[in-house]
Amino acid sequence: MTTQAGGRRRSTASVPDLVSRARQGQPAAVARLISLVEDASPSLREVMSALAPYTGRAHVVGITGAPGVGKSTSTNALVGALRARGRRVAVLAVDPSSPFSGGALLGDRVRMGDHALDADVFIRSMASRGHLGGLAWSTPQAIRVLDAAGFDTVLVETVGVGQSEVEVAGLADTTVVLLAPGMGDGIQAAKAGILEVGDLYVVNKADREGADLVRRDLRGMLALTERADGAWRPSVLKTVAQTGEGVDAFADALAEHRTWLEATGALEQRRAARARREIEAIATAALRARWGALGARSTLDDLAHEVARGSRDPYSAADALLDTV
Amino acid sequence: MTTQAGGRRRSTASVPDLVSRARQGQPAAVARLISLVEDASPSLREVMSALAPYTGRAHVVGITGAPGVGKSTSTNALVGALRARGRRVAVLAVDPSSPFSGGALLGDRVRMGDHALDADVFIRSMASRGHLGGLAWSTPQAIRVLDAAGFDTVLVETVGVGQSEVEVAGLADTTVVLLAPGMGDGIQAAKAGILEVGDLYVVNKADREGADLVRRDLRGMLALTERADGAWRPSVLKTVAQTGEGVDAFADALAEHRTWLEATGALEQRRAARARREIEAIATAALRARWGALGARSTLDDLAHEVARGSRDPYSAADALLDTV
Repeated sequence: MTTQAGGRRRSTASVPDLVSRARQGQPAAVARLISLVEDASPSLREVMSALAPYTGRAHVVGITGAPGVGKSTSTNALVGALRARGRRVAVLAVDPSSPFSGGALLGDRVRMGDHALDADVFIRSMASRGHLGGLAWSTPQAIRVLDAAGFDTVLVETVGVGQSEVEVAGLADTTVVLLAPGMGDGIQAAKAGILEVGDLYVVNKADREGADLVRRDLRGMLALTERADGAWRPSVLKTVAQTGEGVDAFADALAEHRTWLEATGALEQRRAARARREIEAIATAALRARWGALGARSTLDDLAHEVARGSRDPYSAADALLDTV
Repeated sequence: MTTQAGGRRRSTASVPDLVSRARQGQPAAVARLISLVEDASPSLREVMSALAPYTGRAHVVGITGAPGVGKSTSTNALVGALRARGRRVAVLAVDPSSPFSGGALLGDRVRMGDHALDADVFIRSMASRGHLGGLAWSTPQAIRVLDAAGFDTVLVETVGVGQSEVEVAGLADTTVVLLAPGMGDGIQAAKAGILEVGDLYVVNKADREGADLVRRDLRGMLALTERADGAWRPSVLKTVAQTGEGVDAFADALAEHRTWLEATGALEQRRAARARREIEAIATAALRARWGALGARSTLDDLAHEVARGSRDPYSAADALLDTV
């Protein structure tokens, strides 16, 4: 038995045992499986094979928005509303701005203080440790663990920094974009691409001046966004997460979108697209490992030096690399 | 001849002709080659092969920092200092927060107004258009174009949002991290990983209160960062980019780092590492294109549906996908 930095203990439990305990809802087993994902453990292959039959049940909800819009408060309030409906809820806080730090376990407990003692709420931070494909590789697998562990809703909270909004949209069944008054004008919203990614927009801090303006502007821009016939039309809600105002309607809107996804077959399409990216990320990581593992001076290293010296171009180097597969 | 949205004209010039004109420093030809990179044009293979012998001369300098620290003003001032030394300078503004918008040409001209009419200064914005590997794929190739076009210094400016600071460090020979008083405390600095990536730290807006404190804190933290024997020790400068104060010393420090890189062999190492990532990105994009192009319902699509349904796990799907290569 070894101990990890941060004090998490590593059990020597077998994979079938861990999977079985995670499926019974034991938080320590769920946490351990997610650590295996973060560490890119070789045993993930066995873990994912054992979990596959139990996946596909959870409603995966991505929550994104710029710093300061109240993401944690909103997530916390939403967890409360979902718990009141008897749902088991997992929160995965994904922080792409922390490439070097691991999961901030203490921070989670503080932020989500309301639910720290609720056994049907599981909260976990994940950061990319810089290996393999980073969060694009690890987040879908962590979602897979939480799904198989029987959580009805998996909330994936990401810091909204442009690109990551697009990425969370790729991960989730339902993507929620949070806004708040005074956080930036409509042009900025359009620039960051949020009009394309949201299934639901929530203007938080709606008791502040300017909330109606934000909602009106956003509705105007959404109305101008081209959508295919039969496509989902995102709505724009208002909440005051701090007091709980509007949070029930928020939970209703999530359920409504989930129903729409199932009725139209869009759920299967989204999930297949997600699985496709997941498979690609795993295949690519496997290839990279193969390319890098051919000894101290690999073919790739040799090619890289040739390209750096200008004696070869990167395309012919890529061709040569692919010939080695 | 076709015309692109935004009014840029596309010439029907052949690749050898474009390359030759770009090497003579014709801005229109350079711009056209970078558009080919942004569009992931099939002709890039020929372009990069023709450019390879002329690459490896430019000093590639990454400039990163949080919004508000004065990146554009600093870049503008630095361009002036480098021009005064007779250097031809290219600026590549990379905006990872704009996945949907193209290069903001007008914005560039406004921001870099001082140098808009200088034929030895080339300014260009790039945004990921969401295809292939995004900016990780296109930025090194755009740098390659500017390098081969004979610019002595290529300044790559990125919005500092955590992950992108790490990415710019991967792209550049010299990475500059800009800070400003009042933009955040030391703990935030450490969290974003900036202590690991900078070769040079510049506290801009040094005429404001708190600049000395930022410098002192940063020096303290840098002193505590472990480095190998013989490793570069980053210095911390102060500038007021708006007035030009300290900008000459900034340019001196860049030249000093470049000299160190060459003297120690670190330049070759960094460039090989960069080429390695570039080759991997091209090879991976080529594989993805192959996986996706096997007809309307490809093997990957079938595998993705199996994984989405839970009848297969993503690892065995990745194995099956790799078997098709």
